[in-house]
Amino acid sequence: MKGIVIKNISIGDELLIGQVINTNAAWLGEHLSDAGFQLDSALTIGDSEKAILEAFNACMDADLVLVTGGLGPTADDITKPTVCKFFETELEFCQEAYDNIVSLFNRRGFQMSERNRSQAMLPKSCCYIPNTYGTAPCMWLEKKGVVFVFMPGVPFEMKGIFNDELLPRIKERFHSVPYEKRVIMTTGIGESFLADRIKDWEEALPDFLSLAYLPQYGMVRLRLSGRHEDAELLRKTLDVEVEKLTQLISEFIFSMQDQPIERTVFDLLINKGMTFASAESCTGGNIAHVFTLISGSSEVYKGTAVTYATPMKTKVLGVPAETIERCGVVSQEVVEAMAKGVRELMDADFGVATTGVAGPSGGTDENPVGTVWIGVATPNGVVSKRFNFGKDRENVINRATIAAYEMLRQQILITSAP
Amino acid sequence: MKGIVIKNISIGDELLIGQVINTNAAWLGEHLSDAGFQLDSALTIGDSEKAILEAFNACMDADLVLVTGGLGPTADDITKPTVCKFFETELEFCQEAYDNIVSLFNRRGFQMSERNRSQAMLPKSCCYIPNTYGTAPCMWLEKKGVVFVFMPGVPFEMKGIFNDELLPRIKERFHSVPYEKRVIMTTGIGESFLADRIKDWEEALPDFLSLAYLPQYGMVRLRLSGRHEDAELLRKTLDVEVEKLTQLISEFIFSMQDQPIERTVFDLLINKGMTFASAESCTGGNIAHVFTLISGSSEVYKGTAVTYATPMKTKVLGVPAETIERCGVVSQEVVEAMAKGVRELMDADFGVATTGVAGPSGGTDENPVGTVWIGVATPNGVVSKRFNFGKDRENVINRATIAAYEMLRQQILITSAP
Repeated sequence: MKGIVIKNISIGDELLIGQVINTNAAWLGEHLSDAGFQLDSALTIGDSEKAILEAFNACMDADLVLVTGGLGPTADDITKPTVCKFFETELEFCQEAYDNIVSLFNRRGFQMSERNRSQAMLPKSCCYIPNTYGTAPCMWLEKKGVVFVFMPGVPFEMKGIFNDELLPRIKERFHSVPYEKRVIMTTGIGESFLADRIKDWEEALPDFLSLAYLPQYGMVRLRLSGRHEDAELLRKTLDVEVEKLTQLISEFIFSMQDQPIERTVFDLLINKGMTFASAESCTGGNIAHVFTLISGSSEVYKGTAVTYATPMKTKVLGVPAETIERCGVVSQEVVEAMAKGVRELMDADFGVATTGVAGPSGGTDENPVGTVWIGVATPNGVVSKRFNFGKDRENVINRATIAAYEMLRQQILITSAP
Repeated sequence: MKGIVIKNISIGDELLIGQVINTNAAWLGEHLSDAGFQLDSALTIGDSEKAILEAFNACMDADLVLVTGGLGPTADDITKPTVCKFFETELEFCQEAYDNIVSLFNRRGFQMSERNRSQAMLPKSCCYIPNTYGTAPCMWLEKKGVVFVFMPGVPFEMKGIFNDELLPRIKERFHSVPYEKRVIMTTGIGESFLADRIKDWEEALPDFLSLAYLPQYGMVRLRLSGRHEDAELLRKTLDVEVEKLTQLISEFIFSMQDQPIERTVFDLLINKGMTFASAESCTGGNIAHVFTLISGSSEVYKGTAVTYATPMKTKVLGVPAETIERCGVVSQEVVEAMAKGVRELMDADFGVATTGVAGPSGGTDENPVGTVWIGVATPNGVVSKRFNFGKDRENVINRATIAAYEMLRQQILITSAP
């Protein structure tokens, strides 16, 4: 089932020399999919007239081209003159765009500069689409039936305009094919073994459904998705296949929703009316950070004590100095004392603790870089486990965070609400 | 100054529907630049034979094509058969690739599956490049003088292979044009005003240098870069121009190195032999998280207390309950007491604290969503400031984190080492 052909072009030298990671393409892909469209390709090019014109010409087989970036007020932006060349038109002053810029500056209490005024100069033949999020204009132009839309590259502005203004216009103009996806979150099994286990089921899937394996930090996300003109049939088939899949791998599934594991923990705690707190050494606040990105997390989260300096483990969490001396900072005894300590300190139902060697230095024969002890204190006691997450510091921090949430999730499941 | 033409192709449906953000393209761009090469474009396409063949054909005007992704063990990967079609060859068993996979599984203590064995089937005409980071092969093929290199899409593996194996081979094969860049980190001035202020200087820059403005969360990174066969001339010209630029905007510069502000704070603290600790409410551990990503941060960082639940501010940090009652949790009095409290608790030279409304709910008339108080306690007293960082939760957390580090940096600069 194929819909219209949509291409994305991101313009900006900064994207090609790696100073900025292009997150717009992925965001557009996701939101187009959800609306029943499909992004066919995403191209990143530099701020060069030649590259821009080549890219535009290569898109003349598409129905819709979404261009982001290159519309800022500073001199490294050459998109607008190139747009005029491609569409054989010239820039003219647009009062509506100007008024929008003025009102934005007034709202923020800033003074306008001459450069911002020049942002109201737009290609004559374009349809101006208001950007209430910033000073860069959004423009809609057509050439031989191909629609080109130009959006600012700042993600915050691009997302706002796309949702508010563009998607409704795109839906009005183009036919979308119903799309639906299901995501199954698994942990504790590698990609290859998962694939072997569900091989027969996967091979028997109907043509309009496809499965993707998305491994990430000790988890594998499975995405089953499809496109079909008959939305009802699509939904029912997905239901049936997901049910079959679930039975094949039930012990590895931690969520049937496309959400990080901390969100699953959040939902469980909300349901049980219970709370948790964390005591972090090697994860350095990441357990707290990912959880507090969740709006409403304060309902179930008491806080964290990052006791990076060893004496703080004693002073803040009450881990006996004698235990640290005897067993070492990275040990089962210390992680269990930290978990119990923070549970008491913060008056929470569960306490989660980490202590380990994130690296790249600090490893010993006994505890090489990547060694992490994780402990979970519950109303009924404390459990702990030793891991090794490899040599990359960021990787160790991320994997330890996910493993801690998985251990916490297991304990919440078997603990009765008070 | 133009070198060889390099294009990047990333293959994967997951990149186009937004389940995974493509970070490989930016990473490759950065590392190619540093090595004197230049990435001309980066294209993302789905797992479809048609799209892959079209993309390969469109690259026949390049010198080097770096392809990432589509080499995993599961069925959604169709890259290898398509590679055979494009290069008019077929798959054959590669003993070296097989031995590599076996040794990897032995090292990790896992059992090998039949799927992993199939990863040792490679196009006949390819040059196999060992991947010691994973089971997917790396392959080097040529067609009509265009070099195609295929790498796994997992960032960790791709980076390792590129650094260890590919870059040396690329350098041996192709001529690079010396490239150099300087980054100047500014805060406290918007992009347009910065541009107005340095307009004359920018216009007088030599042709082989260019300036880019890279705004992000209340900072603007300025990147001055160029390419020239004469590396010495390039370096000297950059030195001269950076010196001129620095004098024009000195009061807004927080670093002359391309590093986040927490890294500047880290360097300052190391130099002064001083330490800090944080007490976080609305930033939820992010101040700790970004700092502890720095290897060696434990030398100057004592820890954080994330006191998400209000009573913890009293219990852990010693903020008088009466102050919270009288002034409210989001207030100057509370943030200053938190900063002083954590400085004492953690026995640090500086204490940084945040309290605010990250949103999207919880705002009041007095303290709308986005309101954040930041406080810094020093050996000489405490300073604090009120901000509003807008309505987006993640944005509020990130901007508050950067503002906290900027306030801390200012205080470190004016505080004498003990």
